[in-house]
Amino acid sequence: MAHAEHPRFDSAVYARRLERAAELTAEAGLDAIVVGTGPDLRYLTGVRADTFERLTALVIPATGEPYLVTARLELASLRDSAVGDLGLAIRDWVDGDDPYALALDGLGADPALAVSDALPALHVIPLAERVSVPVRLATPVLRELRMIKDDAELDALRAAGAAIDRVHARMGEWLRPGRTEAEVAADITAAIVAEGHSSAEFVIVGSGPNGADPHHEQSDRVITAEDIVVVDIGGPLGVGYNSDCTRTYCFGEPAPEIAAAYDTLERAQSAAVAAVREGATAESIDAAAREVLTEAGLGEYFIHRTGHGIGLSVHEEPYIVAGNTDRLRPGMAFSVEPGVYLPGRWGARLEDIVILTDEGPEPVNTRPRSLTRL
Amino acid sequence: MAHAEHPRFDSAVYARRLERAAELTAEAGLDAIVVGTGPDLRYLTGVRADTFERLTALVIPATGEPYLVTARLELASLRDSAVGDLGLAIRDWVDGDDPYALALDGLGADPALAVSDALPALHVIPLAERVSVPVRLATPVLRELRMIKDDAELDALRAAGAAIDRVHARMGEWLRPGRTEAEVAADITAAIVAEGHSSAEFVIVGSGPNGADPHHEQSDRVITAEDIVVVDIGGPLGVGYNSDCTRTYCFGEPAPEIAAAYDTLERAQSAAVAAVREGATAESIDAAAREVLTEAGLGEYFIHRTGHGIGLSVHEEPYIVAGNTDRLRPGMAFSVEPGVYLPGRWGARLEDIVILTDEGPEPVNTRPRSLTRL
Repeated sequence: MAHAEHPRFDSAVYARRLERAAELTAEAGLDAIVVGTGPDLRYLTGVRADTFERLTALVIPATGEPYLVTARLELASLRDSAVGDLGLAIRDWVDGDDPYALALDGLGADPALAVSDALPALHVIPLAERVSVPVRLATPVLRELRMIKDDAELDALRAAGAAIDRVHARMGEWLRPGRTEAEVAADITAAIVAEGHSSAEFVIVGSGPNGADPHHEQSDRVITAEDIVVVDIGGPLGVGYNSDCTRTYCFGEPAPEIAAAYDTLERAQSAAVAAVREGATAESIDAAAREVLTEAGLGEYFIHRTGHGIGLSVHEEPYIVAGNTDRLRPGMAFSVEPGVYLPGRWGARLEDIVILTDEGPEPVNTRPRSLTRL
Repeated sequence: MAHAEHPRFDSAVYARRLERAAELTAEAGLDAIVVGTGPDLRYLTGVRADTFERLTALVIPATGEPYLVTARLELASLRDSAVGDLGLAIRDWVDGDDPYALALDGLGADPALAVSDALPALHVIPLAERVSVPVRLATPVLRELRMIKDDAELDALRAAGAAIDRVHARMGEWLRPGRTEAEVAADITAAIVAEGHSSAEFVIVGSGPNGADPHHEQSDRVITAEDIVVVDIGGPLGVGYNSDCTRTYCFGEPAPEIAAAYDTLERAQSAAVAAVREGATAESIDAAAREVLTEAGLGEYFIHRTGHGIGLSVHEEPYIVAGNTDRLRPGMAFSVEPGVYLPGRWGARLEDIVILTDEGPEPVNTRPRSLTRL
C-alpha cells in the first residue's frame, strides 16, 4: 500500500503487469492496445481517473515503451498512481487538439489496434476511422492478465469477503418486519462502510415478491413476517477489490414449498462450488448448479448465469455461464450464485465468492448458507 | 411526472422524441441507430437501466418501429420507464444467446449503423464485425435532439439551478478555516440532497493550492484563513436534470494580486455570458472569456474550455470550446465557467448554467458572482 488516501500496490507490481501486457499484445499479432479509463487502466497503472468525453488512455505498443495520453487538466489526478514511479511517458493535450492522432503517433503507418472493452464508442469510432485494419477488442490480452490474480490480489479479495461477512453477521440489527426495504438498505449501506469498504457499490434488499426480480434494488415496500428476503451486497475495499455476497433471510418457519426449494438451491450452490477445479470449464460450473435445480423441477426459475469473475470490477472474467468453455485455473476468483425466482411471489439466491487455489475451491465468504432465520 | 419514485416525463414526450430520432436517422443516411444504456436511452425512453457486459440497447430503424434488446433479467427494470406505455417491442435474450444478431435482425443484409457515444467497445466491436459498412457515431442524431431542450427540460434545469443556489447560500454554515476540505464536502453533500437533489454527483472543495487543480475533488487539507476556496457542486434532481455551479470563497481581505485576478475572471465570465446569442458559434463564447483573461496577462492560467452543455448528463453537447463552430440556438443550456489557476498557489473559477432563450441568455444561477467573503 503505497499511499494511505488512495491505496495501491507497489510500483513493481504495475511494472510487471505492463511488461506482460506488451508480451501478450505482441502474441496477439497486434501493434498496440489502447486502454481507456476504468478498471483496466487502474489494474495496469493504479490510475483511478474516470473521464468520458476527454480521452485518457494508456497505449501499450507490442514493442517500445507504453505511454499515457491525457488531457492536461487531468495530470494532477495521476499523482496518486504509479505513473510517476514507472516513468511512464505522458502525452498531454488541451481542448482543441486531436488526441487520437497523439495516441497513434509513432505506431507506424496503419497499426493493428485493439481497445479495452470499456472504451466508449465516442473514442472507438475516431480511432477506427484512422486505421484500415478493423479495430479489435483487447479483451483477450487484458482478460488473460486480470483473470489470474496474484497473491496480493487474492488477499485483497479475502479481506473484502471477511468485511462483507461481518455485515451479514449483523443483519438481525436492521432486517425485520415492519421496516421498509429502503430503511434496511440505508442501515446496511452505513455498515458496509463502517466495516471497511470505501463505498457500498450495491445494496439489494428484495423482500417477498421483490425477491423474485434478481436486479431489484430496494423500495418503500414494508417487509412482512411472512416474507423471505434476498440481501445481495458488496463494494470495494482498500486497493479497490470488491466484495459480493448474497444471503436469504426469513423471520419464522418458512412455507414448506419455500423451505424445500431453498434446500435444493443450497445443494445446487454446493454442487457448483464442489465442481470448481483446475481444468474444469466455466460452463461446467454453471451446469452443475443448473442440473440440481432442473432435476427438482426448478430449472425454469433459475433465470441467470451462475456467476461472474470479480476483482477491481464487480463483474469481470471469467463468466460462469453456458457457452463459456474457458478452463478454470488457479488464481481465478468468481461468484457462485444460483437463484430461484417465482415471478410475483418470492425469490431466493445464495452467493459466495470462490477462489480457485492450488488446493481447490476456497470460498472467501463463510457465513451459514442455509435460509437464515432472524 | 408519471411516477413518484422514479419521476419521468409523460409518455407522449418520449413518443415525440422517438419519432424525431427516426426522422434524423433517415436524414443521416443510416438504416438504424443503436442506443446503449445511459443518458441517451433515458432521454428516449425513460429507461434508467445501466448495464455493462449484458447488452441492453434501443434500436431505432430509419423506417419501421423501434425495439428494445435486453437481457431477460433486466425486464423488471423497465417497469418505471415509458417502454410499456409506448408499446415498444422487446427482444429479450438469456445468457448464451447472441444479442447482436437479435439487435440486427430485420435491418436488412448489411445495414448502415450508428451507435450512441457511450456504448462500450465491448458491444461496438461485435456489432461492427457483423456489418461491412463502417459503424458511425449516432452523436449527430442524438446531439441534435438532446441539445435543444423543450420547456419541460428547461424548467427542470431551472429547478436544479435554484436548488444548488440554495446550497451555495448556506456555504457559511460549513466552510471555515480550521476544517478540512473533506469535512466541508461531507456537509455540502448532505445539503445537496436536503435541498432536493437525488444525489450529490460531484463536490469539489479546492482550498489554497488545491484550487489550482481544476479536477481536485477534496482532501484532508486543513483550510486556512488566507486561502481562497473553489466550491464546484451539483447533481441530478427529479426527472434527472443536473445542477452545476461554482463559486469561489475567501475569509478576509484577499491578497491584491488575487483580488485583481478575480475581478478579471468575473469580467471574463460576464463577457462570455453576454456573448451568448442565437447564431453565435460555441467557440466564440470561449473566445469572449479567453480574450478578457489574455488581455490581462492571465490567458496561460485558463487551462480548460469555457463550458459544456448540461441536461441528463453533467457534460454533454454543446461544448463551449475552441474549434466548435456549432451555432447556438434557443433551447440550448450550458455552463460558462472560466477559471484562473496558478499552479501550486491558488485557483478561482466562476460558473453559471446559462440557457439561451428567445430573449437571450438566462443564467439559472443567481448567487452573487464576486469573490464571496464568508
